Amino acid sequence: MRNKKYVYSFGDGKAQGTGTMKALLGGKGAGLAEMTNLKISVPPGFTITTDACLEYFKTKKRYPAGMWDQTLKGMKQVERLMQSGFGDSRNPLLVSVRSGARASMPGMMDTVLNLGLNSKTVRGLAEKTNNPRFAMDSYRRFITMFASVVMNVPREKFDEVLEHKKQEVGAATDTDLSAQALNELVAAYHGVVQRETGRAFPEDPFDQLNMAVQAVFASWFGDRAVAYRKIYDIPDSWGTAVNVVAMVFGNMGETSGTGVMFSRNPSTGEREIFGECLLNAQGEDVVAGLRTPLPVSALKDTLPAAYRSLMTTQKILEKHYRDMQDMEFTIQEGKLYMLQTRVGKRTGIAAVRIAVDMVKERLIDKHEAVRRVEPEQLAQYLYPIFEQAEEKKFQPIGNGLPAGPGAACGKIALTPDQAVALKARGEKSVLVRKETSPDDIHGMHAAEGFLTATGGMTSHAAVVARQMGKVCVAGCEDVEVFEDEAKVRIGPSVFKEGDYISINGFSGFVYGGMLSVMDSEVIQAIQGTRPAAQSDKIRYFFTILKWADEIRHLNVRANADDPDQARIARGFGAEGIGLCRTEHMFFSEDRAPIMQAMILASNRKDRERYLERLLPLQKQDFIGLYREMKGYPVTIRLLDPPLHEFLPKREQLMVDIARAEASNVRSPEIEEKRKMLSRVEELHEFNPMLGLRGCRLGITMPEITRMQVRAIMEAACEVAREGKKIVPEIMIPLVGMASEMKAQKALIKEFADETMQRYGKRLTYLVGTMIELPRAAVTAGQIAEDAEFFSFGTNDLTQTTYGFSRDDAAKFTGFYRDHELLAFDPFAVLDREGVGAVMRLAMREGRATRPDIKLGICGEHGGEPSSVEFCHHLGLNYVSCSPYRVAIARLAAAQAALNAVVDQSAAKPKKRGALSRARGRSRTTRSRR
Amino acid sequence: MRNKKYVYSFGDGKAQGTGTMKALLGGKGAGLAEMTNLKISVPPGFTITTDACLEYFKTKKRYPAGMWDQTLKGMKQVERLMQSGFGDSRNPLLVSVRSGARASMPGMMDTVLNLGLNSKTVRGLAEKTNNPRFAMDSYRRFITMFASVVMNVPREKFDEVLEHKKQEVGAATDTDLSAQALNELVAAYHGVVQRETGRAFPEDPFDQLNMAVQAVFASWFGDRAVAYRKIYDIPDSWGTAVNVVAMVFGNMGETSGTGVMFSRNPSTGEREIFGECLLNAQGEDVVAGLRTPLPVSALKDTLPAAYRSLMTTQKILEKHYRDMQDMEFTIQEGKLYMLQTRVGKRTGIAAVRIAVDMVKERLIDKHEAVRRVEPEQLAQYLYPIFEQAEEKKFQPIGNGLPAGPGAACGKIALTPDQAVALKARGEKSVLVRKETSPDDIHGMHAAEGFLTATGGMTSHAAVVARQMGKVCVAGCEDVEVFEDEAKVRIGPSVFKEGDYISINGFSGFVYGGMLSVMDSEVIQAIQGTRPAAQSDKIRYFFTILKWADEIRHLNVRANADDPDQARIARGFGAEGIGLCRTEHMFFSEDRAPIMQAMILASNRKDRERYLERLLPLQKQDFIGLYREMKGYPVTIRLLDPPLHEFLPKREQLMVDIARAEASNVRSPEIEEKRKMLSRVEELHEFNPMLGLRGCRLGITMPEITRMQVRAIMEAACEVAREGKKIVPEIMIPLVGMASEMKAQKALIKEFADETMQRYGKRLTYLVGTMIELPRAAVTAGQIAEDAEFFSFGTNDLTQTTYGFSRDDAAKFTGFYRDHELLAFDPFAVLDREGVGAVMRLAMREGRATRPDIKLGICGEHGGEPSSVEFCHHLGLNYVSCSPYRVAIARLAAAQAALNAVVDQSAAKPKKRGALSRARGRSRTTRSRR
Repeated sequence: MRNKKYVYSFGDGKAQGTGTMKALLGGKGAGLAEMTNLKISVPPGFTITTDACLEYFKTKKRYPAGMWDQTLKGMKQVERLMQSGFGDSRNPLLVSVRSGARASMPGMMDTVLNLGLNSKTVRGLAEKTNNPRFAMDSYRRFITMFASVVMNVPREKFDEVLEHKKQEVGAATDTDLSAQALNELVAAYHGVVQRETGRAFPEDPFDQLNMAVQAVFASWFGDRAVAYRKIYDIPDSWGTAVNVVAMVFGNMGETSGTGVMFSRNPSTGEREIFGECLLNAQGEDVVAGLRTPLPVSALKDTLPAAYRSLMTTQKILEKHYRDMQDMEFTIQEGKLYMLQTRVGKRTGIAAVRIAVDMVKERLIDKHEAVRRVEPEQLAQYLYPIFEQAEEKKFQPIGNGLPAGPGAACGKIALTPDQAVALKARGEKSVLVRKETSPDDIHGMHAAEGFLTATGGMTSHAAVVARQMGKVCVAGCEDVEVFEDEAKVRIGPSVFKEGDYISINGFSGFVYGGMLSVMDSEVIQAIQGTRPAAQSDKIRYFFTILKWADEIRHLNVRANADDPDQARIARGFGAEGIGLCRTEHMFFSEDRAPIMQAMILASNRKDRERYLERLLPLQKQDFIGLYREMKGYPVTIRLLDPPLHEFLPKREQLMVDIARAEASNVRSPEIEEKRKMLSRVEELHEFNPMLGLRGCRLGITMPEITRMQVRAIMEAACEVAREGKKIVPEIMIPLVGMASEMKAQKALIKEFADETMQRYGKRLTYLVGTMIELPRAAVTAGQIAEDAEFFSFGTNDLTQTTYGFSRDDAAKFTGFYRDHELLAFDPFAVLDREGVGAVMRLAMREGRATRPDIKLGICGEHGGEPSSVEFCHHLGLNYVSCSPYRVAIARLAAAQAALNAVVDQSAAKPKKRGALSRARGRSRTTRSRR
Repeated sequence: MRNKKYVYSFGDGKAQGTGTMKALLGGKGAGLAEMTNLKISVPPGFTITTDACLEYFKTKKRYPAGMWDQTLKGMKQVERLMQSGFGDSRNPLLVSVRSGARASMPGMMDTVLNLGLNSKTVRGLAEKTNNPRFAMDSYRRFITMFASVVMNVPREKFDEVLEHKKQEVGAATDTDLSAQALNELVAAYHGVVQRETGRAFPEDPFDQLNMAVQAVFASWFGDRAVAYRKIYDIPDSWGTAVNVVAMVFGNMGETSGTGVMFSRNPSTGEREIFGECLLNAQGEDVVAGLRTPLPVSALKDTLPAAYRSLMTTQKILEKHYRDMQDMEFTIQEGKLYMLQTRVGKRTGIAAVRIAVDMVKERLIDKHEAVRRVEPEQLAQYLYPIFEQAEEKKFQPIGNGLPAGPGAACGKIALTPDQAVALKARGEKSVLVRKETSPDDIHGMHAAEGFLTATGGMTSHAAVVARQMGKVCVAGCEDVEVFEDEAKVRIGPSVFKEGDYISINGFSGFVYGGMLSVMDSEVIQAIQGTRPAAQSDKIRYFFTILKWADEIRHLNVRANADDPDQARIARGFGAEGIGLCRTEHMFFSEDRAPIMQAMILASNRKDRERYLERLLPLQKQDFIGLYREMKGYPVTIRLLDPPLHEFLPKREQLMVDIARAEASNVRSPEIEEKRKMLSRVEELHEFNPMLGLRGCRLGITMPEITRMQVRAIMEAACEVAREGKKIVPEIMIPLVGMASEMKAQKALIKEFADETMQRYGKRLTYLVGTMIELPRAAVTAGQIAEDAEFFSFGTNDLTQTTYGFSRDDAAKFTGFYRDHELLAFDPFAVLDREGVGAVMRLAMREGRATRPDIKLGICGEHGGEPSSVEFCHHLGLNYVSCSPYRVAIARLAAAQAALNAVVDQSAAKPKKRGALSRARGRSRTTRSRR
């Protein structure tokens, strides 16, 4: 019986494998084979397949039959092509050994270079290169690498000996060590290996190879690799391949070198090569960062032939792979060798530009272009950023949750009033609070960004930040506010109010002092302060979105509470408002007192009097919204939050009164507070999330519903008089029972009809409900008898399905994430297994009753790509998200349509961190794996 | 074509209908037919069927073909049997007309007596009876009745005229009016009718009959009847019958009379007749209550023949219907006529006695006996009660929720300490609080009962009350506590601490002053303070339960937290502990400080030190439990509540500190409070219900789980050493994700194994989880991979499914109940449509993974009969409830088995109020319908 093929050779323009064989050869092996087939100069070598790895583990760590023979044969071919011998003491062949799984994976085995060196071949190498120091240095490095990576000897053990030797001979750096010193070092290293492992360093190159291959295999089940696979849902059954490649030397003098290169600029996406190299160096030196690399263009003059070769190669590779390439190369005595090529990482801005350009260059089609941009990457277009080079120079003093992307710098304001005062003086501020509350809104409006000590990704500060497009670092435990002393400690530093800080809402980093902030061009264009036509960047942004729109099925709406937000939403392409939170309209300075008076009123009559005063204000809001939305649907949610949110905090009142009592102060103000406290106590709830809010307000206080319905319908009638089309969608929050839906709908119908009669207008309007309680989902069939649309309020649905309070869950979800009990933050990424199952149930029941029921989502998830994808699979009609995430949702919806999976159950959420930064920083030569 | 039969006659010992024809003839008509067939003396008459009513509405209020002819024929037969003529001016026949649906229903038409009177027949009646005043009085009453009931003339209109007439002629009472005055009154009444309706009072008796029949039909769709049917789930399609019966007169002198009678004592169930009658009176007079009725036994001497006849009749009827009868009768000139018979209402104690006695009398079998007692009625055996006659004399000053049944009287204690102090002085107290908290436990132990101003049926006070078997009136809005002034206002009265009040936990009534409280004999028997054999009452109680046990499939366990509760649970027949709440063990005075110190500890090491001190205490609790339960399963839930419940209240600390600061007080105590506040702030949550509690504690602080598992397993090992069988069931609270279950199970296994190894014992134990979050239900299949049992925590599952906080929901559920948005309190009665659907889902998923998974319920619903029935239908293995509800659950489980419905979806909750009082007060003659 013939043995299975486990080894695929490449070299001299011929490879047994191809670029499509990633599953069998791993990414690296497939790339080497493909480059070889493309006649690109690649050192010869071979790849041991992932199959071999899997069988190795199946058979209790024995190589499968034939594998080793095939390995030896592969080595023979390399020897032939390199015209040298593995273990040949005069003309030794050296190889590198590297792991290579289907996907790039941290935790897998590092590269071992120079394998094949031993006490004999090192001499051959010295003679062959006529450079004994180089040979000894290579050997010394090989022992360190091999012993640490393959034999698990701690690297420090060698470093200690090295340091000792350097002191002994008075060498300042490694390069000051003579061949002799290095020779002695090698002897000492052998001693280290013997001591640490109880065995000698392997002398036989085939032993070395055998051990290295097994070490690569073993690293597949290393702790880090296993943990990584678990998080990213990579199956154990993939296995890793092993790449054995003939060494070429970039350190053979000034006509040799090594480097990395991108085929386009990974930061901007511009079509220009971008890379760094070091002459007379091995890859290791680049990583060590001891010498400053040169730009690749420097080779043009010093090694023009190699440079030309490199330019040709990168063009071939990019054209072949139809994507920007990230390549490693070595030049040995003027001759270019490619060691690796792969698709290059890039910023969002580069991703868009490259994708769009490549369509123009006919390398890819529009579908492919849309697929190529991570939706989250679009956020980079929207937010102010720090000047990158400058930021690198600063040391962060704190690190919190990146809750509102962007970069902000300003004077510390510890109270909202202070932020307003600074703004009035034309100064920028960062509002630093333990946590924010609706009372802080005026200060939040005034500040550039918020930094809070507590709260998660969906805390008040975070939600408001994303809503307003402000920068926010939330839940930063390094922050301790001393409001009374007007001071704040952040990590090691203490600041006074008025000192400058800078916060990076992409990374969660906090800096002391001022960093330069750059504005987003797209935002300026949408706000009309910069003509869109001026900027390439903006044109690219809208081009990719236009293509996305041609593909997607899912409509994208925005959550917008006022005309300003609506305008921005339209600018980002929102096709309607999916959620207008009417309560936000009552927090402004002119309205909050009326709202408070309404709540404090002891009887319905007084309440109605104050509601009468709110009505025209609310109506004006709606008129503004309708006009901005130009006929697109506008979904208006009736009052939702518990009323105590509009009143002063209970504890504060208690403390104020206690203080006054203790110091015998009697003032009308304290009497006021006493009265206020009495009402606050009445409204106090142990679990406000589960209390008197949502439709429970509108049902127990129908006068509130009446005022709101009148405002909605009067506004609609007035806009309709202007000849504009408007179909208001009135949405009832927190319905859990069909009886609530029925009662609220009857009220709405009554007041809507009455209003239209007054105006002599007959308008179409819809009445629907949020589905945000499990009971609503379970009884959706009954609720749909009255509800004309469902909008999934996945924030609250997540809270009730999980039994997580989003204001409190951070107390344990951090621990859960760290201990892998929770793969993602369910308030950021829609939980498909739990919340998703509840949604599916609601859809099925709802559609059974009302087949054409309109279905949408208006939770925070509506703007999160993996959640948008799930909504597409569920078959919702639309997603609604913050205005600033509309573009992201449009792109995510298009990708979902492209990736549409027939078997919906197969659609699992990507287990990447929900907080994935989407920074896509350009890869540097300093951190390569 | 022959017309359908719409009229069923009865009279002279022959009836066209029978007692089984309730659907067609209504309850009243079927009873009259049945009595006639039994040769019991019933005035002749006929019943117009419910079919006729339904067709009447189908054809837009036209009598179906043939109905009126059959009615006239029926009338002819009555005329023949009564030897008089309907409308005959010399010998007039008078009839009564009454509605009669399948079930007794308030809101249906009242009786119209004396129909057939007009200006001519009234004279005939006067002559025939030789009593003109009687005739005119009958006519006057007939006009009032007919005009108000049939013609919708407000009754007050007649009352006004009557009052005017009485003043005019100087009559003190109605009976002082002469025949002449009555004659004038009739003329005036005719004027009222003409004015109010624009038409004359109908003179033709057949017009009167026609109008009365139509009025009965119309009352089926009257507002009150429709509302009642909606609540009690009675279909519109039943319709009502009309009963037309010849008048017999109890007011024809001293040999005539009228009365009501029960065939057994409805209060005690003893086999003795029980009834009241009035001589020379019509039914109306009994209702008016102007004369004091005599006991039926009085007839023995005055009208011996009629009395003997009555005794024979009641025996025949009871034997025939095989149940205690509630009868109406009239004696006309010495001759007995039965007007109605129906199954009589009774107290729980009577219900049990009658059912058990009737089995002995071979009237019914045991199954029927078990069916005959409402489970909730058993509660009447358990709780102390007020002496009933005394209670009637008191006027309630407040009315709250009957949250803990029983009767309590004691001095008002406004603080737990005061209750303890009173108890120390040997005095009884009622703890009156705005609301109670775990801090109050010592006072709650000391008090007889609790009265709270806020909170619902599952508020802390209510739950603790039912757990401890204390009396509780919760959420009594009439209560306002002024703790600082040591005063409380209850309704109109203000009390000082130390004043007496009495609270009735069956009715929710609050009384000022002292009422006599009687102890429950059953409780004494179970606690061993009274030998069970001494009392009939106790023997009956245990007999019916024994029979129930022979029938039921569902096991019944108890929720018990300490050995005392376990003993009571066993006394009531609990077959295990379904829920031991370990946290309750930490609230006692000797443990709370250690628990607090544990929580305040800043690091794990200190926490472990305090946990070490709690371990032996907790172990002793478990040993006690295991010993009491004698081998029955014991389910122990790991720590569940948020830790801040063990610490002082945040607001109180803030106020104390603020006060001290304002008055410049510096003391170590305040420093202590400051420190405490800082930790309390760390633990503070906006929605503690959805916060860091349940398994989230055990996961983030595994040392707590370790201590508890060790205590559970050490106790088990020690009890096993005594040679006793014990299989602990360790229950993990608040699991929402399979990962939580897996992590906690691994911990439990580790510490359990470690403990057993230490003891050298190998014990079987189970690890399972509460299902109390919707997400746990949706992902139950995954959770069941590790969980060996599920226990539905329907309290929390109801909270999360509805999004109701049980501590807060009373803010709107009262309104919801009043406005029929909520048919029952979902914290009292399991919501089948919503929460039930979620449970069903969890069971299906759980069983798919683990077919033999043990399934139970341990929420408050486990002791509520309709919920127990649902649990039986669902197919749970057991219900677990408070010890004091075990008997109720046993009976409910037996009834569920008897009523087992094949189509489970047909099993709807009975839409009776969840708070159904189960008082079954004996019906009095004062409120008959």
